[in-house]
Amino acid sequence: MSASSKAPVEYGVAPLRLEVSRRFSEFAAGVSFDDLPHPVRHECKRGILDWIGCALAGSRHATITTLLAGLRAAGSLERVSVIGRGLKLGLLEAAMANGQMGHVLDFDDTHMDGVVLHTSSPSLAALLSAAVAEKRSGIDLMTAYVVAFEAGVRVGKASPRHHDGGWHLTGTLGSIAAGVAVGRFLGLDPGRMNHTIGIAATQAAGMQQNRGTMCKSFHAGKAAANGLLAGLLAREGFDSSEEIIEGRRGFSRIYSATSAPEALIDGLGERWELAGNGYKPYACGIVLHSLIDGVIELRRRAIAPDQVERIELQVHPQAIRITGVVAPETGLQSKFSLYHSAAVAFLDGAAGVAQYTDARAVAPDVVALRTRVHVRPEDAFRTDEAHATVVTRDGARHEAHVDHATGTHDNPMSDEAIEAKFQANAAPTVGEKRASEIAATVWALDELADANALIELCA
Amino acid sequence: MSASSKAPVEYGVAPLRLEVSRRFSEFAAGVSFDDLPHPVRHECKRGILDWIGCALAGSRHATITTLLAGLRAAGSLERVSVIGRGLKLGLLEAAMANGQMGHVLDFDDTHMDGVVLHTSSPSLAALLSAAVAEKRSGIDLMTAYVVAFEAGVRVGKASPRHHDGGWHLTGTLGSIAAGVAVGRFLGLDPGRMNHTIGIAATQAAGMQQNRGTMCKSFHAGKAAANGLLAGLLAREGFDSSEEIIEGRRGFSRIYSATSAPEALIDGLGERWELAGNGYKPYACGIVLHSLIDGVIELRRRAIAPDQVERIELQVHPQAIRITGVVAPETGLQSKFSLYHSAAVAFLDGAAGVAQYTDARAVAPDVVALRTRVHVRPEDAFRTDEAHATVVTRDGARHEAHVDHATGTHDNPMSDEAIEAKFQANAAPTVGEKRASEIAATVWALDELADANALIELCA
Repeated sequence: MSASSKAPVEYGVAPLRLEVSRRFSEFAAGVSFDDLPHPVRHECKRGILDWIGCALAGSRHATITTLLAGLRAAGSLERVSVIGRGLKLGLLEAAMANGQMGHVLDFDDTHMDGVVLHTSSPSLAALLSAAVAEKRSGIDLMTAYVVAFEAGVRVGKASPRHHDGGWHLTGTLGSIAAGVAVGRFLGLDPGRMNHTIGIAATQAAGMQQNRGTMCKSFHAGKAAANGLLAGLLAREGFDSSEEIIEGRRGFSRIYSATSAPEALIDGLGERWELAGNGYKPYACGIVLHSLIDGVIELRRRAIAPDQVERIELQVHPQAIRITGVVAPETGLQSKFSLYHSAAVAFLDGAAGVAQYTDARAVAPDVVALRTRVHVRPEDAFRTDEAHATVVTRDGARHEAHVDHATGTHDNPMSDEAIEAKFQANAAPTVGEKRASEIAATVWALDELADANALIELCA
Repeated sequence: MSASSKAPVEYGVAPLRLEVSRRFSEFAAGVSFDDLPHPVRHECKRGILDWIGCALAGSRHATITTLLAGLRAAGSLERVSVIGRGLKLGLLEAAMANGQMGHVLDFDDTHMDGVVLHTSSPSLAALLSAAVAEKRSGIDLMTAYVVAFEAGVRVGKASPRHHDGGWHLTGTLGSIAAGVAVGRFLGLDPGRMNHTIGIAATQAAGMQQNRGTMCKSFHAGKAAANGLLAGLLAREGFDSSEEIIEGRRGFSRIYSATSAPEALIDGLGERWELAGNGYKPYACGIVLHSLIDGVIELRRRAIAPDQVERIELQVHPQAIRITGVVAPETGLQSKFSLYHSAAVAFLDGAAGVAQYTDARAVAPDVVALRTRVHVRPEDAFRTDEAHATVVTRDGARHEAHVDHATGTHDNPMSDEAIEAKFQANAAPTVGEKRASEIAATVWALDELADANALIELCA
């Protein structure tokens, strides 16, 4: 049937026929592991290992305990392992829990090329559930992971002002990324892949208003469940609009003030979005990382905290918009405070899980120092650029400029740094030995016969 | 804690402190059955009876069969009856199935006062699941049903251009309505009610782009599941923004180009939104009803189809925007075609379930007549106003003007008409005797000790 008879049309206006959703679906359903360049294959392993570490570290978080209490009230089968928890839930519920624990510490990978998106939490959580329902190989998992990035990032680029609209992209784009990942993992044909996108997109949600609350990481888990459900429904013949991204009432129009649907297919199969993925050395939003780099650099110059008169920060205005909380009262809130982040970076020389706890958010030394932090927006800065100055009581100014935050595309973490972060994240939950087993399995993921073996190691 | 420390703020802009979400939550958690005027209590029974009929009629629809296949692939407990299907699913999955079957025929109640919303499908489907988990009375069900309308309609009014933005309100507002209904049914305190709204709103989705596909009615079922999950999570202490509607990145700002958050609490407890609910004599979108009324009126004047030269329709422009499909190919698509609707209204003298089947969408007599239908937008018309003219081969013009469509607030269906529609909908699925039992139970719902008895009658 023709698209024009399906979609309602504006009176007197001819419908657009870009068909980018259809063409993207053909790619996502058709691309094979053999098509992936070796650096992209390797990036899969880095991304998957980093994410499992974040999920294991997040698994004991109080937010996850509360989520699990709610899911228990709803009731669930016991089929898929909940990472680090020693229990099982149904496919959708486990996707929700695993997806949320991956993101709850704000420590998971972040795509940096135009779209700020945490792709792994929604898509890997969905895939781990799918791997229980359907036996597939490590190669299938990696291929699905690659197309998840193509879907999430490209839909974001097709909707250029999506973030400005107030959306939490990990909820919205994450639903679509997870759907495409599952559709690919299940081996859906292009038509059903297109319906997967349509069903996933029509569930896409998550508001920035919920930053600093349990809902923020919930968006990642819910996106995983949304995408998984989309793939399972589409496989049974459940249909949707076949122009859900580019249509007159489609995603790139209603979730963004400007629309560039052709970005969905531009350079598809030539440029790989996974290559733009970044990893976080610090357990907070990426916009904070460059200023933390700068403050840690100044701390290395052996300035004592009681000598600090003031800390001056110059950052991209977005950092102030997103992380401008002046007086956080909880660990979750402190992740949205550049004042808190600068204070702990200076006091502790770190910004890991231990720096964003409820206790640290209100610790007297942190509170005392954060009131001495002054911030100025610099329109000319890149989002991963910052300038930090410590003014000491003797009037001296100590300055550090950060061009690219550690972990970004232009200043990447090494494989060794990724594995060290993984060990630090994973060992407290599963022990060092099991952590090493998981790492070895991921580094050889293209040889794994049953992808489900991976999640069983993390249970 | 203060709201300003929780929500991120724009640089240099003081946060708004309307607190309408908090004040609405206090109302929704605190209002009692005794506070409800008797006409509102009676409207509960009309709305619930009408909806159960729609769900029973929709239960055998092929779309529901496909949905159930997908839910079976996901796996589910067996706790809550799926209406008309003789099977049980888990709480969330049953809410999804029952909510979708209530809306799949486009025959369910429609709120008419400024916000076009099908409130019952999401909220009653969620409540039926909640009633299995928690024993509550018929009075509790009715009170929860009333606050669902307050929530869904008022959030819509707080977001005046929400529909123009491309959203399917039954998915978006429906999630919030279902959440508030469940929160009330479970007896949550005002703080947890506010979190219920925050969790429900941050899941709110559904695109108009999916009109004419299985996703459209899916939005209603997904909204039910979203709202139910929100209530269950909030009860366990899962939190959210406490200004999710009015906040800087809140619902009324990001889901609408204009924002009027104070509408959430204006006249709360004095004006009851349920009183503005309408019921459909025809199994299609409400924007089609006035023109169907007009064409049926002209048919009554005994004009033979082969004498028709052309049918001219004048309608509100919205009717053309929403239902402008010229050549529908399926039953679902035909619900979005005023050409098809006018043709069947004239040929069959009806626009019920039988007029919107796959077969009728492509029947030769319908196709022949729909090509003779000509439509003109009239900006000055109300949305429930239409003018129909049949021009016969002899050149005579037969005209009918409809001020208010049957079933709207200004031309309501009687209790007898509601019950007759219910019988016609329910009897083919459960038989006349059981249908009468259900009707008797609903008309005496305020005397029912366990609300779960109602769903068991429909299983």
